[in-house]
Amino acid sequence: MLHQERIKPPLYVYPMDDWKLIEKRFYPDLLPQMETMFSLSNGYLGMRGTFEEGAPVYQNGTFINGFYETWPIVYGEEAYGFAKHGQTIVKVTDGSIIRLYVDDEPFYLPAAQLLHFERVLDMQSGVLSREVLWETPSGKRVSIKSQRLVSFQYRHLAAISYEVIVQNARAPVVISSEVMVPQVEQHMDGDPRLAHGLKGRVLHPRVNYFRDQRLMLSHATDKSGMALACGVDHTLATECSYIAKTQSSEDSAKVLYNLNAEPDMPIKLVKYITYHKSKTQPPEELCERAEWTLDRAVDHGFENLLEGQREFLGEFWERSDIQVMLDPETAVRTTREIQQWIRFNLFHLCQASARVENTGIPAKGLTGSAYEGHYFWDTEIYVLPFLVYTAPQIAKNLLSFRYSLLDQARQRARDVNQKGALFPWRTINGEEASAYYAAGTAQYHINADIMYALKKYVDVTGDQAFLFREGAEMLVETARLWYDLGFFSDHKEGKFCIHGVTGPDEYNTVVNNNTFTNLMARENLWFAAQTVETLKTQDPERFLELVDETGLNPTEVQDWKRAAELMYIPFDEKKGIHPQDDSFLDREMWDFENTPKEKYPLLLSYHPLVIYRYQIIKQADVVMAMFLLGHEFTAEQKKRNFDYYDPLTTGDSSLSVGIQSILAFEVGYDQKALEYARYAVLMDLSDVGGNVSEGVHIASMGASWMVMVYGVAGLRDSDSVLSFWPRLTRGLERLRFPLQVQGQVLEVDITPESITYSLRRGEGMLIRHYNEDIRLSAENPAAVRPFKT
Amino acid sequence: MLHQERIKPPLYVYPMDDWKLIEKRFYPDLLPQMETMFSLSNGYLGMRGTFEEGAPVYQNGTFINGFYETWPIVYGEEAYGFAKHGQTIVKVTDGSIIRLYVDDEPFYLPAAQLLHFERVLDMQSGVLSREVLWETPSGKRVSIKSQRLVSFQYRHLAAISYEVIVQNARAPVVISSEVMVPQVEQHMDGDPRLAHGLKGRVLHPRVNYFRDQRLMLSHATDKSGMALACGVDHTLATECSYIAKTQSSEDSAKVLYNLNAEPDMPIKLVKYITYHKSKTQPPEELCERAEWTLDRAVDHGFENLLEGQREFLGEFWERSDIQVMLDPETAVRTTREIQQWIRFNLFHLCQASARVENTGIPAKGLTGSAYEGHYFWDTEIYVLPFLVYTAPQIAKNLLSFRYSLLDQARQRARDVNQKGALFPWRTINGEEASAYYAAGTAQYHINADIMYALKKYVDVTGDQAFLFREGAEMLVETARLWYDLGFFSDHKEGKFCIHGVTGPDEYNTVVNNNTFTNLMARENLWFAAQTVETLKTQDPERFLELVDETGLNPTEVQDWKRAAELMYIPFDEKKGIHPQDDSFLDREMWDFENTPKEKYPLLLSYHPLVIYRYQIIKQADVVMAMFLLGHEFTAEQKKRNFDYYDPLTTGDSSLSVGIQSILAFEVGYDQKALEYARYAVLMDLSDVGGNVSEGVHIASMGASWMVMVYGVAGLRDSDSVLSFWPRLTRGLERLRFPLQVQGQVLEVDITPESITYSLRRGEGMLIRHYNEDIRLSAENPAAVRPFKT
Repeated sequence: MLHQERIKPPLYVYPMDDWKLIEKRFYPDLLPQMETMFSLSNGYLGMRGTFEEGAPVYQNGTFINGFYETWPIVYGEEAYGFAKHGQTIVKVTDGSIIRLYVDDEPFYLPAAQLLHFERVLDMQSGVLSREVLWETPSGKRVSIKSQRLVSFQYRHLAAISYEVIVQNARAPVVISSEVMVPQVEQHMDGDPRLAHGLKGRVLHPRVNYFRDQRLMLSHATDKSGMALACGVDHTLATECSYIAKTQSSEDSAKVLYNLNAEPDMPIKLVKYITYHKSKTQPPEELCERAEWTLDRAVDHGFENLLEGQREFLGEFWERSDIQVMLDPETAVRTTREIQQWIRFNLFHLCQASARVENTGIPAKGLTGSAYEGHYFWDTEIYVLPFLVYTAPQIAKNLLSFRYSLLDQARQRARDVNQKGALFPWRTINGEEASAYYAAGTAQYHINADIMYALKKYVDVTGDQAFLFREGAEMLVETARLWYDLGFFSDHKEGKFCIHGVTGPDEYNTVVNNNTFTNLMARENLWFAAQTVETLKTQDPERFLELVDETGLNPTEVQDWKRAAELMYIPFDEKKGIHPQDDSFLDREMWDFENTPKEKYPLLLSYHPLVIYRYQIIKQADVVMAMFLLGHEFTAEQKKRNFDYYDPLTTGDSSLSVGIQSILAFEVGYDQKALEYARYAVLMDLSDVGGNVSEGVHIASMGASWMVMVYGVAGLRDSDSVLSFWPRLTRGLERLRFPLQVQGQVLEVDITPESITYSLRRGEGMLIRHYNEDIRLSAENPAAVRPFKT
Repeated sequence: MLHQERIKPPLYVYPMDDWKLIEKRFYPDLLPQMETMFSLSNGYLGMRGTFEEGAPVYQNGTFINGFYETWPIVYGEEAYGFAKHGQTIVKVTDGSIIRLYVDDEPFYLPAAQLLHFERVLDMQSGVLSREVLWETPSGKRVSIKSQRLVSFQYRHLAAISYEVIVQNARAPVVISSEVMVPQVEQHMDGDPRLAHGLKGRVLHPRVNYFRDQRLMLSHATDKSGMALACGVDHTLATECSYIAKTQSSEDSAKVLYNLNAEPDMPIKLVKYITYHKSKTQPPEELCERAEWTLDRAVDHGFENLLEGQREFLGEFWERSDIQVMLDPETAVRTTREIQQWIRFNLFHLCQASARVENTGIPAKGLTGSAYEGHYFWDTEIYVLPFLVYTAPQIAKNLLSFRYSLLDQARQRARDVNQKGALFPWRTINGEEASAYYAAGTAQYHINADIMYALKKYVDVTGDQAFLFREGAEMLVETARLWYDLGFFSDHKEGKFCIHGVTGPDEYNTVVNNNTFTNLMARENLWFAAQTVETLKTQDPERFLELVDETGLNPTEVQDWKRAAELMYIPFDEKKGIHPQDDSFLDREMWDFENTPKEKYPLLLSYHPLVIYRYQIIKQADVVMAMFLLGHEFTAEQKKRNFDYYDPLTTGDSSLSVGIQSILAFEVGYDQKALEYARYAVLMDLSDVGGNVSEGVHIASMGASWMVMVYGVAGLRDSDSVLSFWPRLTRGLERLRFPLQVQGQVLEVDITPESITYSLRRGEGMLIRHYNEDIRLSAENPAAVRPFKT
């Protein structure tokens, strides 16, 4: 239950549009969050939606996924096994700045007399454009049109087209296109969710040079040993005369165009910006790669990049779009807004994941540095379902990336006195970077979350090769961890208990037998045992390899099965619910009534010891388990659990509302489900969490997709067959979306009258509609069914 | 149970002596711990037992109790209400150095040819003396005799007498007497028990000057705003000719005596060293005070100081000595050793507490900077019993000091969202300095510990004025904290439960219903209610004042009584024991058998999450409760509890063995009790904890006294009457000790034949011998009783 109305005005500044996010005038107060909202990214390179002119600015940030610096974590009081090094994503060299001067006076938005202002993020063209008509104090009308893109096609490339026309006069115009290393700022205000740790200079200059209008700056970090080259090139198209001048130093460079603007004569500068990073290659090598990228970009030209964006996004929407309206012309306003909201979420999911290769997806994508650019379970549990069903190759990349960190996970397990492997709760480079174990390292469930995602990926794609190769090794090591972590407790009739862990809910930490963790660990153990056994019979050669890689002992598999079978799952017979953990029901009830709104999120107003003492929940925990492993609960248990936990759940985490929504749908609370869905979908658009200025909430965006697909359409896939339990919900005129399953494409189309399942591509598949099994095939590609009444 | 033999060789280097600790030769390997063992202190000023020559040295430290610097605590991950500032005791200006050069070559112990070496800490004279006979490479025999004292009489004063005689030749002799600000060293090796936090320069120079042989350096800290003046003066007595030269800079100063030594002609330098500190007065003022102290010292002379020491200690031993032998001449070696061991503990208790005024007693006294010079519950629970019975004025000072911190405790309660007052777990200035809440702030029991000590002080001294004035106010605020912290739990039939706390045992943190805490909180609530009610009838005026000071509402007292009456005390009917907390018995058993010795203390080898998962105990917890509140347990419960917990108790804390010993005595395990007693008494002498180089364990020293008085003699005082349950223990020939009770003095004298209770001073008192009440009076001052058979 959300204990306050959190939909705030920012939402209403965006005019209704199916495909665009539009800002009709300049809102100084909304500047910080607009920078986030208008961020561009391709999953490798991200640029916040700052103005080209570099000012005004809240937080100027260009990010390269996985480009980070480390720092020694200092503990007030150290203890054995605490994580040693922090990792923080670095704000890299900023190539976006293009300053404009007319009559040698700068164009500065807040002070400028604007006859027109519009900024548009077009989710079909993948372009952020801004149109301004500026009347200078001397009455000159200057039209400024910029277009910015971060290329999906060329992952190292961004480009900006900047067009200036002095409409009614001659004027001296100066355009200064710049590249610079950003100042290091400090966040030390105590909000644990923000980035911190880095002090002083982070990027140390290496090679830098320029040639004509091409600028090249390269830098390296000190401790993480990463190198970065940022190259920029320009083409200027105009019939106005001008002089160009280039300057360069270690940390900044610029090309200055000194133009004699003629009335109505366009001046169009295109700026190409490229970033190459490496942990092993020297800056010289990266500069060379940057040269290639720039050569290609300049050769192809800006129009070609625009085309590439449109093409890429065309395919993306084809694979991923969720349509929610019947007829754009007649649909009511609310419905049309929903379309925009949902697409905004999907678009950012695309931006966060499109070109992710050899990294994870940071909690904020590449739209801000909060959470330090770390990868959490968000990727596997919140984003991966979307990717598995719409872009399985990316899902595979992400799981492969986890696999590449297995050795560090093995080391981490040893660091905390355990066998097997323990994936880090938060990381960039594979080492644990959580400096607060109670809400970090204690979240052992990360292991099971990743294995859960692996299972989903394998189930939905049928990629057994990946399971047998990378998957099996991860399964062995994670199962080992669980078996070593828990114990058969005499106190619980020999059941397998897991103590001293934190579940998803960070308002109850270091508990015994967290229901979520135990259920997920059991799934992990089962899946590991089953995979090893299958492998042994189906691919004995690979099995022997696995034994070799992991030192697997045959008795281990028996141990896992026994632990799984005897896994203790807390259940309170009297209340008929699953306690969140052994002592959850013992706790005091929180006095919600007398908690003022401004005390939320509670973590910013109460000492952890206070919060931990109450039956108060930051985010779905048992409810999350009921979503991920729905088949483990009866319908009655689900309802009782939801009824018990929902009122205790503050939703202080952005990860909460989406899951609450899906379960509310399932247990039949449509009104509540829609309310939660609204919060999930509007998390960023309406700044529900109050911190969108620091970046979007990628997990909540993933949850938005899940709310539609798992919530409204009632998809369930944790059991063997793909089943749907569609709900006719007021406020949604239509819900249509595609799902890729084992190389085939299923389209689900829900209208108030019926549900249509269509096989868009593929040989055939079995699905379940409520309790009816339906076989779709090339011959019978569609089935129309009514709602259950 | 101690899982390893920990009595190590160092013990055996000290020859047997009733009153002296003697080092017969220079042991380079033992240098670090010898510096601790030979530390001198008066509770205000402490100097480690370094050599006058300044080298070799492990850790050169002069400490002023409560002279500290603060620093911002940096958390890996910050949260609301975490302690903000660290506090660290500062190594102050070192005035002890006297360097000696013969033939312009330095006297350097490790390299010197020594014909004789002896160092003696005389516990009757309060003097550390060293005698060395050095043969220089050129065959000159140089006798060096030094005597050092930290004055009990003049708390700001230390003095060193340094006598040099070249026995067999003429020689140029240079004596350089120095004062210097020590280098700041860094401890960053991850051991949480050491001091850390301070970086760079801590003492910033203020006034400095010299006049003749008098040197004056003053400094101030940056953040804590404390000022310090260190003054030194000299007298040189010799018939040899010499030139004296004085030099001074901001951070060091020296007087250099360039002498022409004649054969067998003594050169005797006396150095007087004084320290004055203040948080409010400027350095100039402190320098002036230092001048007074030096004037007086020089005027009285060294002999006078020696006399003062002897007199002070004479009174101390009169009040505090524990005699353990019948006849020094005939007693067996073991017994005589015990005498030395016990006196060593008592002597350090004296040194730590003698002149404590307006501060607490640091965990290491003033013998090292481990635990950063912080005050813990050690003072109230481990040291105060000794002081209450032997030096009640000091006990009162310590409680008054706590009272002076009440406002900060009120603020701390608000910081962690509670009502009333919460005393800091560790502090110098009254603010919480614990940077790890699980083993810090969560130890709410500190409140009850202080109130327990208050009750003991009041019970034993009868000082009702203190109870009504300072005591009542502290009681109201601490009771409020408990009432606000706990709740009446439906889940426990309406009992009053206290969740999310850490008891004394730091291997099980943030638990629900810690038996120790609940019992102690109940005592706190009862005592508060009773005091307020007594006050209301006996001193209505003061009662009204109290209401005014605290805003006390009459219903509050009823609340406290109800909470106390309904306090939930965990009890396991099946096992017949008190679980340490709600979930303790659910935990896994630790595999002691397969834990290698080098893994102890476990906290240095296992992640906290691992440790917290097991039934493994760092230090007495339920056992501690059975000691402090013995009347709350039946004899059978005590035995069962002890039997259950003792094998789980690692004794990784030095606070453990003493309490285990007392309870082992009580439940009749004499052999085990003696073994534990030995560990307690030898904690420092034998470096049981392996870290005596960082300072002595004052709490364990207090426990050593308690082991004799509460353990062997079986004193119990938590109920209304002073009772004894003496045990005839092999290995102790005799046990005789005095107790001050309400201004009277009782002597208890236990021999293998009988127990004699003698009223040495006073009108009369009621005591209990086993179950027999005995009234001692001026007429019948002594009672002789047999052992219970």
